[in-house]
Amino acid sequence: MGSPSAAASWKQLVLSSIQSNSHLNHSSFLQIASVASNGRPSNRTVVFRGFQDDGHKIQINTDSRTHIDDLKHCPFAEICWYFTNIWEQFRIGGQVDVIDGTNSDPFKLQQRERSWFACSLKSMMQYLAPAPWLLFASEQQPTETPTLDSFMSSVGVFCLLVLNLGQVDYLNLKSNERLIFTAGQDGSGETHWSVEKVNP
Amino acid sequence: MGSPSAAASWKQLVLSSIQSNSHLNHSSFLQIASVASNGRPSNRTVVFRGFQDDGHKIQINTDSRTHIDDLKHCPFAEICWYFTNIWEQFRIGGQVDVIDGTNSDPFKLQQRERSWFACSLKSMMQYLAPAPWLLFASEQQPTETPTLDSFMSSVGVFCLLVLNLGQVDYLNLKSNERLIFTAGQDGSGETHWSVEKVNP
Repeated sequence: MGSPSAAASWKQLVLSSIQSNSHLNHSSFLQIASVASNGRPSNRTVVFRGFQDDGHKIQINTDSRTHIDDLKHCPFAEICWYFTNIWEQFRIGGQVDVIDGTNSDPFKLQQRERSWFACSLKSMMQYLAPAPWLLFASEQQPTETPTLDSFMSSVGVFCLLVLNLGQVDYLNLKSNERLIFTAGQDGSGETHWSVEKVNP
Repeated sequence: MGSPSAAASWKQLVLSSIQSNSHLNHSSFLQIASVASNGRPSNRTVVFRGFQDDGHKIQINTDSRTHIDDLKHCPFAEICWYFTNIWEQFRIGGQVDVIDGTNSDPFKLQQRERSWFACSLKSMMQYLAPAPWLLFASEQQPTETPTLDSFMSSVGVFCLLVLNLGQVDYLNLKSNERLIFTAGQDGSGETHWSVEKVNP
């Protein structure tokens, strides 16, 4: 069935699951799958950084030295977010906008800068560390010596991912219910959501 | 560096993480990514069903009406297994052997049968339920009426997935260490593992 409130409805389910798990530090951790340039799947844990501008796009921070090559090869991703305590799973698929420091859109650069300053100092430090997956050298130093100045603007490898959602598959294993929310566009290009109840 | 004990070593890390999280019901839940036939990534939560015959292959049960089409299209998968309490992540990639009731290998059929009888009654019931993702009909009945006989042999849609591991990426966010274990074959076709310490 088509429904103007379907978008509000899936987002309400996500927010409600976050709320009822807010006492658990790890409730903001989710797994994001992408497709590597060799065509094989890739999967990793990331942190949910909120909905962009209180809308319906999901924000994730990452290091451009990690899975960005995957996303350049295939811009689609699927999040799997399982709330273990309440037995609820969200599988959220969509297209990813990769926003690094070279982006030509001033608005997107501003979003990226805002995400940078929302990071903890510990998170910021990670982006100054030696490149992930390169052979570890016990003597190596961080690529930049962190000073207060280092953090006054976002570092080059800091990357904001914005997931433009195409489908939300909500599974509740307690009530044994499954809802599929699907995004579509109407004649004027506006996104609208429809929802179907399917077998779990 | 090449090392004969590298396989033992990554498996020991997995077993140790399982052990230290055994008080948490959800510690056996992991996310498995595959590539759908449209080339997009797919991601879902499944349950770790142990190592096959105490070896190095990972077993997962699934319903052939779910992501098996993905695996027929692209037989590779990547598991992401995050142990939230101890801050340890395993990303485990490899090729998946899909064993359903039509498999021609008697040994594999035996493995599948063994996995079936290791299921709880509740798990078994799921395989008798109406097909996942089909439109929910409030009046529908299970496709088979479960009787004791129903469970005396595995049902048709029950599927054993066996992941033949190619790489294990172990990340410890407490000690800030990352190890990459890679499988290779020697001249006689035996699998051997090498391990490298890389930047986290």
